[in-house]
Amino acid sequence: MISVTLETLQDVIERALRRAGLTPEDATVCARVHAESTRDGVSSHGLDRIPRLVDYLARGWVDPQGAFESVQALGALEVYDGHLGLGVPHAMRATERAIALARQHGMGLVAVRNTTHWMRGGTYGWQAVEQGMAAIMWTNTESCMPAWGASEQSIGNNPLVMAVPGGRAPLVLDMAMSQFSYGRLGVLKERGEQLPVAGGFDDSGQLTCDPQAIQVTRRILPTGYWKGSGLAILLDAMAALLSQGRATHEIDTVERGSGTGSSQVFMVFDPDQLGGIDACRAMVDDMTAHLSKAAPDESGRAVRWPGASTFHRRHDSADIVVNPDIWSQVQRLAGDRPRS
Amino acid sequence: MISVTLETLQDVIERALRRAGLTPEDATVCARVHAESTRDGVSSHGLDRIPRLVDYLARGWVDPQGAFESVQALGALEVYDGHLGLGVPHAMRATERAIALARQHGMGLVAVRNTTHWMRGGTYGWQAVEQGMAAIMWTNTESCMPAWGASEQSIGNNPLVMAVPGGRAPLVLDMAMSQFSYGRLGVLKERGEQLPVAGGFDDSGQLTCDPQAIQVTRRILPTGYWKGSGLAILLDAMAALLSQGRATHEIDTVERGSGTGSSQVFMVFDPDQLGGIDACRAMVDDMTAHLSKAAPDESGRAVRWPGASTFHRRHDSADIVVNPDIWSQVQRLAGDRPRS
Repeated sequence: MISVTLETLQDVIERALRRAGLTPEDATVCARVHAESTRDGVSSHGLDRIPRLVDYLARGWVDPQGAFESVQALGALEVYDGHLGLGVPHAMRATERAIALARQHGMGLVAVRNTTHWMRGGTYGWQAVEQGMAAIMWTNTESCMPAWGASEQSIGNNPLVMAVPGGRAPLVLDMAMSQFSYGRLGVLKERGEQLPVAGGFDDSGQLTCDPQAIQVTRRILPTGYWKGSGLAILLDAMAALLSQGRATHEIDTVERGSGTGSSQVFMVFDPDQLGGIDACRAMVDDMTAHLSKAAPDESGRAVRWPGASTFHRRHDSADIVVNPDIWSQVQRLAGDRPRS
Repeated sequence: MISVTLETLQDVIERALRRAGLTPEDATVCARVHAESTRDGVSSHGLDRIPRLVDYLARGWVDPQGAFESVQALGALEVYDGHLGLGVPHAMRATERAIALARQHGMGLVAVRNTTHWMRGGTYGWQAVEQGMAAIMWTNTESCMPAWGASEQSIGNNPLVMAVPGGRAPLVLDMAMSQFSYGRLGVLKERGEQLPVAGGFDDSGQLTCDPQAIQVTRRILPTGYWKGSGLAILLDAMAALLSQGRATHEIDTVERGSGTGSSQVFMVFDPDQLGGIDACRAMVDDMTAHLSKAAPDESGRAVRWPGASTFHRRHDSADIVVNPDIWSQVQRLAGDRPRS
């Protein structure tokens, strides 16, 4: 592994994306989001995703010209068609629009259909809390997980984001409906490690902690077994309804890469109209203070809350560790000649 | 176990609640909801809960006069104070009001603070879909589960409800953030059975499937380990923010029984303004048809979706099986002399 600065990371990604056909504005936005996700420890949806995004652009699976088109406005609720454009700038626009609606109406909801992968969902939760807003957001995806009771991939892992501003630090949840991602399985397999708890099924249908066995069957486990399966189904139906877009089984028929054609929801609330931002921040601070005082369990884990690790990482100025192979690959996509 | 009809169940509960101080109107509403929950297989929040509700009324922990008072209106978003009144009629009023707001604005959100236990959350999801509406609802609760990393009860199990109308049947999710409820642990312990998957920690801090060991430690497991813990924390913060009411750590200080002083959110969407109810129903039917075609796993479980078992049970006219001890107890509360 090698270390790079945030600025270098962003610069190289930006140039790679401009060469792949993005406008300077979109390349800047995407590079910033992918670089920050990498710094936050979510390289799977940061640097590591750039070669795949460039490939999707080359294949026409993501259209860099795909517009963010308003198709319906019902006061605080608006619907947009993403025209298979860039998922990250679309999601940032949707968040900004939901924030504007929330400032006007107390809450705002923007649903986007026919869009592409938003990469790290937490990005948009942070975008909201950094402007003093609370948010609930989610996306559906293509089938990548068996429903509870099935052996076949039949539901999406449909990440859910929830964010509430705090005083010391915000709460930002970014959870997929699978217990572990395929990316996490790959990392642990490389290290020769087992999962801490069962993460899927082996080829005899038994729950297993062996990442390789799950990579073979592609049967990752919904978080909480039947519960994560049920929540994934409802998030899917609700996203398809609100955006009047595709549900997971319809995204499957698009067959143009992960996330292409998905439906997304961005709901934002304005604490200033709900008792005031100061009261909201104080409530979150009280809550986390209360949590941190709970007696610890035997694992030696501290009690943490969603967003804490990203927050601490952002306030740690260390350089960013990247995978050297992927880094070289992205440098070449940017037109650079890697030193190695 | 003995069998009763829905009508008998409702009649006896209604008389018990009138004797406990409820108005005839509130007694009718509560009796219908508790009877229907029992029929739907959720006796823990139906008949079985009546003695505890009567006890709470006697202690003044639930105020039968507690009004549902409007405290804020921001267009499609309204906030109410429940004044520690009856949780079930309050939640039904909140749902009706959110439906009315959704008919007017496309979506409606009603947040209720300072209310009491809503019993079975799914009740309000069904109330919405029966009127052709989609819904997202949740409540916070007192601490009843350790946060991930803690050994001490420090978060609520904060049930989440999501519902989308279908043609053949709706999707209705009603999930608590614990993998199993204490009620379920009790049922399995009585039967001498183990949990199908780990549901909490034993006194040496190990995950266990033994319901009795978990009853001893009171350390039930968040669904999906850290994920359910994180989601419970965010649902809590969001409910407290939207209602400007108590968060879990503040409910804990009320110390007036389960659910007293909680904060609830009722969000409703009108499919008729989002592509039409027929398109929504067709989408849900397509989705469940797709799910039911997925290859089954080795367990012999059919692939099910949230709401399916309630739906099938409601279309099965069989009598309702009740616990004879609790049934006698509620008959006595109604002023009847049980035959046994």
